[in-house]
Amino acid sequence: MTEDLDVAKLQRRLAEFAAARNWQPYHTPKNLVAALSVEASELVEIFQWLTPEESARVMSDPDTAHRVTDEVADVLAYLLQLCEVLDIDPLAALAAKIDRNERRFPAP
Amino acid sequence: MTEDLDVAKLQRRLAEFAAARNWQPYHTPKNLVAALSVEASELVEIFQWLTPEESARVMSDPDTAHRVTDEVADVLAYLLQLCEVLDIDPLAALAAKIDRNERRFPAP
Amino acid sequence: MTEDLDVAKLQRRLAEFAAARNWQPYHTPKNLVAALSVEASELVEIFQWLTPEESARVMSDPDTAHRVTDEVADVLAYLLQLCEVLDIDPLAALAAKIDRNERRFPAP
Amino acid sequence: MTEDLDVAKLQRRLAEFAAARNWQPYHTPKNLVAALSVEASELVEIFQWLTPEESARVMSDPDTAHRVTDEVADVLAYLLQLCEVLDIDPLAALAAKIDRNERRFPAP
Repeated sequence: MTEDLDVAKLQRRLAEFAAARNWQPYHTPKNLVAALSVEASELVEIFQWLTPEESARVMSDPDTAHRVTDEVADVLAYLLQLCEVLDIDPLAALAAKIDRNERRFPAP
Repeated sequence: MTEDLDVAKLQRRLAEFAAARNWQPYHTPKNLVAALSVEASELVEIFQWLTPEESARVMSDPDTAHRVTDEVADVLAYLLQLCEVLDIDPLAALAAKIDRNERRFPAP
Repeated sequence: MTEDLDVAKLQRRLAEFAAARNWQPYHTPKNLVAALSVEASELVEIFQWLTPEESARVMSDPDTAHRVTDEVADVLAYLLQLCEVLDIDPLAALAAKIDRNERRFPAP
Repeated sequence: MTEDLDVAKLQRRLAEFAAARNWQPYHTPKNLVAALSVEASELVEIFQWLTPEESARVMSDPDTAHRVTDEVADVLAYLLQLCEVLDIDPLAALAAKIDRNERRFPAP
């Protein structure tokens, strides 16, 4: 993993981007979760009329692949900004959740 | 960053968890984006009646802090699983998006 | 249509229910649209892992039928409360939209 | 209430509109709830960066008022189409829910 693709570095770039535009007052946790859910819905919109089979082939069309990738980036951007303002470590949160799920739902 | 908290390693753990339970047939891109948006809404639900000021203090209550962290983990889990099935690198997608936004929206 | 099932009467009952509990301060348009989207996602949650075919049979299981009907009621409740606070007539809004769509997208 | 603004009549117009364009195969319950949640999120998008006070004044700007009214129509359109394919009476569902809530949560 290059330094550019480090979660903490991406959070720093997002914070600097927002600060340079004086967006911090808008970035309350309440607003960030709303924005996160809106971006997640923009992903859903791409898939809403597709059959399961069509949805599995979505990356074979370059334009749709670009749209999907772009919306994934938007979801991750708001998730990381939310984690920044709430001081949550997203990777640690997920690792803890997987640990918990492995105990709660043992594999058959 | 410890190895446990590496995105690729978390994706591998999520994939193994799903495979051990034979969940892959359910994990179409269409279903994963739906699940992602449902988890994002569960985050919104925590904040929906809060004032902006209350939303900024949400981590000071341990129970709410735990719920928020847990939902953040769920959102990230589905986002990483979606990226896995679509072969998208989420950190590269976000880095490219920030690059693009920096060109499109120059800081004042 | 009986008087009980009149949109305006349902809006009046919802407004009285909220007023009796002093919920009006929470019922800003911003909060009501968040609540509406959360309820819509609770509907999605019921369907998220179903195949298209399973989704078409969802009312044949009485428990699921009850859950779906209940979530439909919740979505409609927040939509009507939003319309009340914004002074929007939802049926007129929809009739106008259908008119517009019939002009914009002539049937083949 | 004029006949044009009757829920059943709006459902009939929506069904005819969809049938004339051969959209019924896309209108599975699963797809309709996804579309409903996407439209609800488009409402959220209008409000996501507004303060509670700004959100209360949203109808005073004619363009925003038009956007909000249009999205309300879209949410209602998918809700009524969902109810049609699932044979749910939305107004009866809401009346039953209000009855239930009045028993479960007596006013103080």
